[in-house]
Amino acid sequence: MQIKAIEWIDNQIQIIDQTCLPEKKETITLTNVDEVAEAIKKLRIRGAPAIGVAGAMGLAMGMLSNTTSQNDNAFFNKLEQLVKYLNSTRPTAVNLSWALHRMKQISKANQQKSIPEIQTILIAEAQKIAQEEADRSENMGRLGASLVNDGDMLLTHCNAGALATYGKGTAVAVFYHAHEEGKKIHVFADETRPLLQGSRLTVWELQQAQIPVTLICDNMAGWAMAQGKIDKIFVGADRIAANGDTANKIGTYTVATLAKEHKIPFYIVAPTSTIDATLKNGAGIPIEERGAEEIIYGFGKQTAPQHTQVWSPAFDVTPARLIDAIITEDQIYYPPYQF
Amino acid sequence: MQIKAIEWIDNQIQIIDQTCLPEKKETITLTNVDEVAEAIKKLRIRGAPAIGVAGAMGLAMGMLSNTTSQNDNAFFNKLEQLVKYLNSTRPTAVNLSWALHRMKQISKANQQKSIPEIQTILIAEAQKIAQEEADRSENMGRLGASLVNDGDMLLTHCNAGALATYGKGTAVAVFYHAHEEGKKIHVFADETRPLLQGSRLTVWELQQAQIPVTLICDNMAGWAMAQGKIDKIFVGADRIAANGDTANKIGTYTVATLAKEHKIPFYIVAPTSTIDATLKNGAGIPIEERGAEEIIYGFGKQTAPQHTQVWSPAFDVTPARLIDAIITEDQIYYPPYQF
Repeated sequence: MQIKAIEWIDNQIQIIDQTCLPEKKETITLTNVDEVAEAIKKLRIRGAPAIGVAGAMGLAMGMLSNTTSQNDNAFFNKLEQLVKYLNSTRPTAVNLSWALHRMKQISKANQQKSIPEIQTILIAEAQKIAQEEADRSENMGRLGASLVNDGDMLLTHCNAGALATYGKGTAVAVFYHAHEEGKKIHVFADETRPLLQGSRLTVWELQQAQIPVTLICDNMAGWAMAQGKIDKIFVGADRIAANGDTANKIGTYTVATLAKEHKIPFYIVAPTSTIDATLKNGAGIPIEERGAEEIIYGFGKQTAPQHTQVWSPAFDVTPARLIDAIITEDQIYYPPYQF
Repeated sequence: MQIKAIEWIDNQIQIIDQTCLPEKKETITLTNVDEVAEAIKKLRIRGAPAIGVAGAMGLAMGMLSNTTSQNDNAFFNKLEQLVKYLNSTRPTAVNLSWALHRMKQISKANQQKSIPEIQTILIAEAQKIAQEEADRSENMGRLGASLVNDGDMLLTHCNAGALATYGKGTAVAVFYHAHEEGKKIHVFADETRPLLQGSRLTVWELQQAQIPVTLICDNMAGWAMAQGKIDKIFVGADRIAANGDTANKIGTYTVATLAKEHKIPFYIVAPTSTIDATLKNGAGIPIEERGAEEIIYGFGKQTAPQHTQVWSPAFDVTPARLIDAIITEDQIYYPPYQF
């Protein structure tokens, strides 16, 4: 069964509360905009595409509860206010502001219509945004799966799966598709320090889909490759420069470098919206650095001296020369990359 | 101030209880053999060389409490019994059985002497074993430090320091020496999953010595190298084959492969006792695989689904071709390795 990180059900929003994973799968229903904002802020729902969908659905739900059916101005003022409110929950997630902007545009384009009609249009648009997301996942998964052979042992890093999107994910969509096509695959998942998205989320969702998965610590990836345990590697992307250089979760560069040394194909799977044509190469991609507490207190117990100096970049940039193909919803790009 | 993982003080054994690190430094005094056995079993003291010293000192202490000064047979029976008892605490640690065997030999060689004399000889032998350990550390540190330049940024993996030995350690001894020689160094320490010896122990002991240290997650090592943050890498070893292939903590192979790709010198530091001349190459080194619980429940909080399948080799083998030099207490070996 396909996991749904988020769903629109009877004018309410149902999500898997990801803060409860991997210990238990808890589905919660968000019944008002404040609950949506809280869920995004507290990372109950996460992953840029999923957050975009949550924002759009949250806005549609918020405008549905509007009672000023007599007054168009008040309606649009409230919409403006909710857009700002939802957008402030995670200001750096591009998909969130993009989805909210699109919702605003469609309401403006239909402002001559009745409020009940606009409310229906907003719900339809949120679902369209979600469906487009799912379609992109399907296409990426299908294209990527064409590179997977029966019996392949596949490695991934972080969580680029259903939990991060509305559909099947990006890199993990490839595994779902290959599995559905009847190919016997076995996935190795890097635990992905410091936030452990691999062990907490990727392992969990692959288990739900009954795809065989083995968890390894990040530092075991090299030895796994040397032991012949890995045939291909699929990971997602946070931003791709015009030349193919790709920013993704910290550790991706290490995996790509090891892959090259062991002559193992290394693939990026990401929607075209991830490609940033304004950047000539990866040097222009800003790398967020995160705090020490995630490393020192990450597992519940203190694992390093209290005032330890830490270097914790959230992302790294894998140069295009280490990437064997970039799979989008439209096509598989091979080097030299020209999008 | 030099950390002492273990010390003989007034016929008792003082150790740093490593199970309390990094939260606090707790020194405990072991006053009888049962306490020594418990400390070894519970990893209050760990690291093969340190365990060897603990075993020898524990035996000396145990025989000191012997009251049968009239009966030689009973004395040697008790010695035999204590050797077996101490050796059973961690049967795979080669240094422990080696040290206990040496203690037995010296007592036999002196069996014609009075019991008080033999007791004194045992204490002296335990201290000699410890001192030889410290001397080897000194030599490795001094030789290794000759490869370190002022201003070097140095990476290490796991804990090959004072906490694992009687002296200054192996790889970490190099850092202590370079620092004492007045070279400004900065150490990057891999946290070293799953047991986090890097963040819990290496970071702690370098901080005690006021050597600048930055903690990174294992998967950040590649990006640190790409960013020009690492000039040289020093790690310890668990076993070295006749051709230079080296078994060490899991993740070492990944670091060595990344080092080669970034043209960063990669050095092994280990006493000659680590060289196993009976092994032609690394293929013969057995690799212990460890349980899933260390990864899933490692530090208090559950970080993967309960029944997750895990692949967790405790060690890996770095081929000699990736090793730029092997530093022992006698000399620096360069490839092709002939010991």
